[in-house]
Amino acid sequence: MYNIIEGTITSPKGFQASGIACGIKNNGNLDLALIVSDVPAASAGVFTKNIVKGHSLQLTMKHIKCGVTKGILINSGNANACVGPQGYSDALNAATLTAELIKCPIEHVLFGSTGVIGVRLNNEKLQSGIHKAVSALSYDGGSQAERAIMTTDLLPKEACAVIEINGCKITIGGMAKGSGMIHPNMATMIGIITTDANISSQLLSTALKLCVNNTFNRVSVDGDTSVCDKVVILANGLSGAPEILTETEEYTSFCEALYEVCTMLARDIARDGEGATKLINVKVNNALSPEDAYLTAIAVAKSPLVKTAIYGEDANWGRIITAAGYSGAQFNPENIDIYIGDLITCSSGVALDFDEDKAKSILKENEVTLIIDLKEGSYNDHVWTCDFTHDYIEINGSYRT
Amino acid sequence: MYNIIEGTITSPKGFQASGIACGIKNNGNLDLALIVSDVPAASAGVFTKNIVKGHSLQLTMKHIKCGVTKGILINSGNANACVGPQGYSDALNAATLTAELIKCPIEHVLFGSTGVIGVRLNNEKLQSGIHKAVSALSYDGGSQAERAIMTTDLLPKEACAVIEINGCKITIGGMAKGSGMIHPNMATMIGIITTDANISSQLLSTALKLCVNNTFNRVSVDGDTSVCDKVVILANGLSGAPEILTETEEYTSFCEALYEVCTMLARDIARDGEGATKLINVKVNNALSPEDAYLTAIAVAKSPLVKTAIYGEDANWGRIITAAGYSGAQFNPENIDIYIGDLITCSSGVALDFDEDKAKSILKENEVTLIIDLKEGSYNDHVWTCDFTHDYIEINGSYRT
Repeated sequence: MYNIIEGTITSPKGFQASGIACGIKNNGNLDLALIVSDVPAASAGVFTKNIVKGHSLQLTMKHIKCGVTKGILINSGNANACVGPQGYSDALNAATLTAELIKCPIEHVLFGSTGVIGVRLNNEKLQSGIHKAVSALSYDGGSQAERAIMTTDLLPKEACAVIEINGCKITIGGMAKGSGMIHPNMATMIGIITTDANISSQLLSTALKLCVNNTFNRVSVDGDTSVCDKVVILANGLSGAPEILTETEEYTSFCEALYEVCTMLARDIARDGEGATKLINVKVNNALSPEDAYLTAIAVAKSPLVKTAIYGEDANWGRIITAAGYSGAQFNPENIDIYIGDLITCSSGVALDFDEDKAKSILKENEVTLIIDLKEGSYNDHVWTCDFTHDYIEINGSYRT
Repeated sequence: MYNIIEGTITSPKGFQASGIACGIKNNGNLDLALIVSDVPAASAGVFTKNIVKGHSLQLTMKHIKCGVTKGILINSGNANACVGPQGYSDALNAATLTAELIKCPIEHVLFGSTGVIGVRLNNEKLQSGIHKAVSALSYDGGSQAERAIMTTDLLPKEACAVIEINGCKITIGGMAKGSGMIHPNMATMIGIITTDANISSQLLSTALKLCVNNTFNRVSVDGDTSVCDKVVILANGLSGAPEILTETEEYTSFCEALYEVCTMLARDIARDGEGATKLINVKVNNALSPEDAYLTAIAVAKSPLVKTAIYGEDANWGRIITAAGYSGAQFNPENIDIYIGDLITCSSGVALDFDEDKAKSILKENEVTLIIDLKEGSYNDHVWTCDFTHDYIEINGSYRT
């Protein structure tokens, strides 16, 4: 049992945050976020599978191994990636100063960078920015921090859930930045989750992986996995609730609430994909194996032909069956049913004479569900994506200068 | 040694063709092509790996097993796919009538359909069209046939090469239709190659697979593999040259010429991809394995971010390294060099301060080569693709009606 409330990463007890502008972005927008827990927090993270990894991400992956984190620094406007050995030492300098100012070992600081690939960070701007960000820390600074990690995201992405354990309220807050690449070479998705739950970093890591797999890992905007993607969670225990242990009701509640926070953020990332006008929920039912379900869903969600059809509000189920067919999933094409919303358009692999007006009205909505029923087994999966639009081309075809 | 000449599928001796309009396309454009060899020809084909297969394609895959073909019928405007058991019997009816009129067993007729998925063929129009197509057969009808298989292709795609064996001229002619889907649900690539060489269907099949793998199978427009893709070759032996046998100089010459015809057609398909303004040649050098080379090339060629950047004439090598990084290929990111044309932009994984003006002038051309040198091993590969443009969205987002 959890409740969704208005809130963000500073809603859980004992978290301060700030978002400031330090000049990394030329337009003067916020570009540096800092999140600090009052006490060292248990931490866990999941990171991009891209074998090219940004320098700041490499530092974070090293530091998070100790399972304890006090502060997370994130800049937008520069990915700190592919700049050679200087990139790692720039990250180290930023973490060192942050650790000094928030008074913790350097290993308790994580650093994230999102933005242009192949350009060095300006250390001077960053160092003075870190001083400014520390001064600006506040217990209601969460939304400022969110704004500081956004690039071309049109909407801030924040979510919050509460559960109760032994009469104590536990809060989980989250923020994310999505796929915005108006300034090219961007490296994209970042999710930060905070909670005042008392939980070990090992169990936190198990819970996070479970939730991320079906939420953040089920979003595709353009199929391009960036070199800086990460989702990190901190749990500082300041709720006063007893420790959450594995295989308990409390752990189940915690996971459900965390799953919901991740779901809200992940859907918002898809909905706010570059140039998007519609959120598309691709659901695959009754596959022979979990892999078959995933392969089908991701192929349909990545297909430019499907995504442009939805943009055009065109009930093009032929493109859906085509994508399913080349997905690598095993199924008998003579079994497949395809729905657009609740309207069946293809039954057992054969075209139906469906109501085009009804299809049109379903596709006019800003949220569209596509259901592919393989009728082979009992495994289901889903991927959230968005439509492919003129604005996507406009945003991503624009010059870097 | 081969020579490229102007020519098409009726350039080899003993092939007639026609292209007529029978009303499958509503706009009155040519929509039915027929190619007939004076004598039964050895034949071979390669077909889509999509597990959903059009009904006409299924008939072709069955008939080609006998290794002998006299006629190929192809309609555009309707894919004859996903319409249930009627689809196969419609294909059978068309092949039956064609076989009667060109006087051969039904197994010697192949049938291809390209166009909308999920709509039944109009048998009446098709039957009268077949009569008309047979009447229109001519020894210089190749280009008419090419025009009749085009959908939204802007340019006809034809190629021809000649070799000499024992003083006899052998001609290889080809035509193709590419990725045109202005009317949605299209199923796309078709390649037809004819030759007057004397060669067994087994050896023809070996040669075709060899050539297709590095040509037609190295084209990606939008990553969507259709349910009707096929490349078919007929060899009628009418050149008068002696039979081409395996492991001979003649076989090598024949393969080289066939490879060149396939290359010309494949490049033309990429160049004329939907909405394309540029042909992009993605080359990967020095991979650890053939698979690593292919994975890297296809990931870069499919990346919407790379394709929009090239459309915007933006030297976004960061998107190229990102795509390589998530491709699944094994390589050390600290070794990779990336070139745009002959301009190196990233050396050993580190950004270079390259000449933006030179990059701009390279990207202004209507043919752009991207080179990814992994510096890991000795395997190379390539994929041809095109840029991703406003017109792609316009074409594919348009309503079916």
